[in-house]
Amino acid sequence: MRPVTKTDSPFSLSAYLARRKKIVEEALEEYLPGEDMFPQEIVRAFRYSVFAGGKRLRPILCMAAAEAVGGTSDAVMPAACAVELLHTYSLIHDDLPAMDDDDFRRGRPSCHRAFGEAVAILAGDALLTESFRLMAEAAAPSGRVVRVIREVADAAGWRGMVGGQVVDLDCGKTGMNPDTLHYIHTHKTAALIAASVRAGAILAGARTRELSMLTVYGNAVGLAFQIADDILDAGTDQRTSTGDTQESRKRITYPGLYGIASSKAQAEKLAGEAAGALKSFDTKAEPLRMIARFIVERED
Amino acid sequence: MRPVTKTDSPFSLSAYLARRKKIVEEALEEYLPGEDMFPQEIVRAFRYSVFAGGKRLRPILCMAAAEAVGGTSDAVMPAACAVELLHTYSLIHDDLPAMDDDDFRRGRPSCHRAFGEAVAILAGDALLTESFRLMAEAAAPSGRVVRVIREVADAAGWRGMVGGQVVDLDCGKTGMNPDTLHYIHTHKTAALIAASVRAGAILAGARTRELSMLTVYGNAVGLAFQIADDILDAGTDQRTSTGDTQESRKRITYPGLYGIASSKAQAEKLAGEAAGALKSFDTKAEPLRMIARFIVERED
Repeated sequence: MRPVTKTDSPFSLSAYLARRKKIVEEALEEYLPGEDMFPQEIVRAFRYSVFAGGKRLRPILCMAAAEAVGGTSDAVMPAACAVELLHTYSLIHDDLPAMDDDDFRRGRPSCHRAFGEAVAILAGDALLTESFRLMAEAAAPSGRVVRVIREVADAAGWRGMVGGQVVDLDCGKTGMNPDTLHYIHTHKTAALIAASVRAGAILAGARTRELSMLTVYGNAVGLAFQIADDILDAGTDQRTSTGDTQESRKRITYPGLYGIASSKAQAEKLAGEAAGALKSFDTKAEPLRMIARFIVERED
Repeated sequence: MRPVTKTDSPFSLSAYLARRKKIVEEALEEYLPGEDMFPQEIVRAFRYSVFAGGKRLRPILCMAAAEAVGGTSDAVMPAACAVELLHTYSLIHDDLPAMDDDDFRRGRPSCHRAFGEAVAILAGDALLTESFRLMAEAAAPSGRVVRVIREVADAAGWRGMVGGQVVDLDCGKTGMNPDTLHYIHTHKTAALIAASVRAGAILAGARTRELSMLTVYGNAVGLAFQIADDILDAGTDQRTSTGDTQESRKRITYPGLYGIASSKAQAEKLAGEAAGALKSFDTKAEPLRMIARFIVERED
């Protein structure tokens, strides 16, 4: 993320993102067990991955969506942290030797390199399980909480993120084609990002029309995010944006299929669609509008 | 399980268990995607493990607990199937090369032997995720559903089953001692069995005193089940009761620490405790009473 800079602008996105990131990390610290909790090995392993950095984009979107429909970020904080735990679990399992076999993540040894394969598998399992426990803690009417749990599970499971990862692993066999690429990106990345937005909005009591517009926003931002990631990866000589140093497996990407210029145009178009979906929203949706721009303009 | 036999007894447990097992398997078939759903590879992998047989003890306990407090088994069916999915996910991940490295499960190749390691990891992840989606479908007031999700997540995550597995993996280093053995058995096995009982009771609207007695029942039955499993394993020349043909790792067991006779006495004592906890319940708790006996007397 860019450093926080003083600005005369009425709304500084970089300062906002830095503040929110800090709030999310403080909440994660509050919700997760401390280093000394038994069994220490598993607690240390999942804390290692959760506190390895990252933009905390999913929880920030969850909070911003709640606020866009008149809710508070405090009430949705457990759900916001829950989607971050889901994201972290997926990174730990994706890095495993049987999957992407990545030795590094965000510039330091990946979870299985630091704690061994068995503990890394279990650390991912623990975070996945804990994310649903946290969702069940949201300060909202129970009916909304149950709906969010169902939706987030859809987005994370075989119909969503897990399904995307399976098809991604398989794409060496099936080869690159637009349908497969679209399936992978919408399922592996966009589904959980869109669910993060919807979760915040549902918990905050969004009306049907608001939720429907925020769904358009979430899907567009989610896909734009992954295309932007592909473009950043293509520009960093096979090093991914999160600091991985090896790629043992051919990956299907937007630039690989459409070229850089066309990929950039598609990401821009999606960012425009996302902003367009928020037209009827007032200034409370300003962070969401700026995040849509940030996602395609970011440099890491 | 023993074959269903005609009997003059007013309540035939073997017939009851066979009927319930069939009902659970029909419900699982209804809730899970068919073989041809995309992405087929992951769907086939998790269906392979879910429909590999098994006693369906956890869902049967969940249904029986609901009925013991005056509820119906239909209303808790999604939660009953959810705990079975959690159990299946734990078997798939426990069998992985990095964990117990078991090539066989219930007499056929384990999930990673049949589908490869990456798909097996993801099949476990998909089932774990799907179990929370199913819990969110229970036909009960939302407040109860949220409570059940929180409790089952506790029983399955780092505070429960995952924690037990981590300590179990570690016991080669720490050696056999009564505290470690008790921790592993109560966390790895008893926690989810007790949570299955509590889930059924909570969803069916159990009163505080009923729930507290059923908790004593669930914990006792859960630990008795694992001790009985250890005893069965000890009697089958290092082949586990579920048909695994290799044990690449020294396992900490009750017979290993206390001998067979003392282990049997402990299992009997727990079965008695479980039955005792149901004293104030009427005939609707009869299946739970008989299951407590069955668990220590079963032969597979």
